[in-house]
Amino acid sequence: MTENSYDVVGIGNAIVDVLAHADDSFLSRHKMAKGAMTLIEAPVAEALYASMGPAIECSGGSVANSMAGIASLGGRAAYIGKVADDQLGSVFAHDIRATGVTFAASPIVGGPPTARCLVLVTPDGQRTMHTYLGAATHIGPEDIDAALIKRSKIVYMEGYLWDPPRAKEAIRRAATLAREAKRLVAFTLSDPFCVDRHRAEFMTLAEKYVDVLFANEAEIISLYQAPDFAAAVEQARRRPGLSVLTRSEKGSLVVAGSSTHEIAAEKVGQVVDSTGAGDLYAAGFLYGLTQGYDLPVCGRIGSIAAAEAISHLGARPEAPLATLIERKLGRLAPGANANKAVRN
Amino acid sequence: MTENSYDVVGIGNAIVDVLAHADDSFLSRHKMAKGAMTLIEAPVAEALYASMGPAIECSGGSVANSMAGIASLGGRAAYIGKVADDQLGSVFAHDIRATGVTFAASPIVGGPPTARCLVLVTPDGQRTMHTYLGAATHIGPEDIDAALIKRSKIVYMEGYLWDPPRAKEAIRRAATLAREAKRLVAFTLSDPFCVDRHRAEFMTLAEKYVDVLFANEAEIISLYQAPDFAAAVEQARRRPGLSVLTRSEKGSLVVAGSSTHEIAAEKVGQVVDSTGAGDLYAAGFLYGLTQGYDLPVCGRIGSIAAAEAISHLGARPEAPLATLIERKLGRLAPGANANKAVRN
Repeated sequence: MTENSYDVVGIGNAIVDVLAHADDSFLSRHKMAKGAMTLIEAPVAEALYASMGPAIECSGGSVANSMAGIASLGGRAAYIGKVADDQLGSVFAHDIRATGVTFAASPIVGGPPTARCLVLVTPDGQRTMHTYLGAATHIGPEDIDAALIKRSKIVYMEGYLWDPPRAKEAIRRAATLAREAKRLVAFTLSDPFCVDRHRAEFMTLAEKYVDVLFANEAEIISLYQAPDFAAAVEQARRRPGLSVLTRSEKGSLVVAGSSTHEIAAEKVGQVVDSTGAGDLYAAGFLYGLTQGYDLPVCGRIGSIAAAEAISHLGARPEAPLATLIERKLGRLAPGANANKAVRN
Repeated sequence: MTENSYDVVGIGNAIVDVLAHADDSFLSRHKMAKGAMTLIEAPVAEALYASMGPAIECSGGSVANSMAGIASLGGRAAYIGKVADDQLGSVFAHDIRATGVTFAASPIVGGPPTARCLVLVTPDGQRTMHTYLGAATHIGPEDIDAALIKRSKIVYMEGYLWDPPRAKEAIRRAATLAREAKRLVAFTLSDPFCVDRHRAEFMTLAEKYVDVLFANEAEIISLYQAPDFAAAVEQARRRPGLSVLTRSEKGSLVVAGSSTHEIAAEKVGQVVDSTGAGDLYAAGFLYGLTQGYDLPVCGRIGSIAAAEAISHLGARPEAPLATLIERKLGRLAPGANANKAVRN
């Protein structure tokens, strides 16, 4: 077995977020599905951007946010994603590297621009997202660095990756390489609409490849087309590996076969912007796993990281998460081998 | 006299801010002049950016921030500045228009990229700025729309404009047009180092063209090479027009000949980022003037707008300033003709 150079390597759509405040009437005027992620083409993106208020730009992308979180927690993270050779591509590359994440960008030249996500944050802190994938659609199996996969304890991928045409080939290659090297495969369902678009493939993936599945209530219900959350949980128990189910202020649930761990949500003073909450929960949980902590501790780290992300605008941590975790949980003792806890 | 279409037209360097947190050791390691604005060339900008932490991008530019402030206060504002035909140029144009400011961008094609300012925010809330002017250096007299100048009550320009080579021709043209049309000319000294670079020209401008001069303590001391603030104030009294002197937490001073108005600073809970405080003070003051309010009221509006800018990251108002002013000062009665108050 090769030496572990990284705790987690993430693969996802490399996106720059364009965040603006909006009220609910703006969402209804533009027929937006509140809280969801909708894919849009360039002309729609232009028109929507023109109608939005003043914005700030900051690097995003679900798995990229998680990798930034893992680095902030003190973990070793790498990222694979596709940007263009343009200003927003440089912004993305700078920001993820500046958090300490290894990112070997090979930006595409002469193609579509770097992906952007128009994020409308309503006064209740919810975010409604419209994504133009641009350069991110060019990811393919040639972008998967086999050595990098083999040298990482966990490979983490997002459901959103199913949208670009050749990304699923990239994912299959990464998942196969990870399996061969006896690495853990983690996956997030990303979004209930995304699950709708790719249910059959996600089911196969969840049953055959995924050791750690992340989903929120709407996503896991959508995956199993279950009548309610409880029914979806029972279905999740039957798959091999862990299912980590997040429930916003109701906390999270880690199920594996007959075992269940309930984890309380971390208290948040004010929900400023929910962007990145799920991404940072996953960061905390995966970091905990790579350190060999018990599953409830992994969940606690996830909850604390998510709470930090919710308390400010933008999806990446502002405060160093390692310090925050030590303040909340004390200095944690080294854990047992996490792989044992995952593979049941 | 033509009809007033705008309260204020601003002319400045159109810049996108790249904001990151940094500690004082980062500043000393990079030999940065804390609190000042330093001009840098492209290679230095690249190297500095690479060493900075994760950043957010938001539209900036001193006078552009002021115009956004005036629009947020309910005033009618227009802006003249130069961007490139690139992604950051689109970001700048979008953001200023989204605040309600008229901006007729004619982006340069095939030249340097849109200007950016690398802003390091230290834990004390101070901002240290390194600016790569790029496309902003291409502003020239051909960018000054004579009709726009004639249709605005006030023309507001920044000292920073003296740095690009042909901008001073643009400024002279704008100031002459404004004088001919009996419009007020307002000017900010921008930065003590900027005053050092262009003292003689700023003196001529202040004596002959400027009706409303904005400066902070360091800038007015630098302009007159005075031993202290009190001596600089006495010098400022001798020039025609108003001198509006800001002193951070010590408030501001409006002097015109023998008359003096002292205005208290607005209390701020926590200084998060001082970027934009001076810009927003000028916005409030100029807006007050265009509404014909008494000078102390103009200063109060400036102080309240500045306090809003200080309380969050970024230089443009987050809260609608018109609402904030009404909450703090009540609904203000229409004022007398401000021009009378200014020209002494």
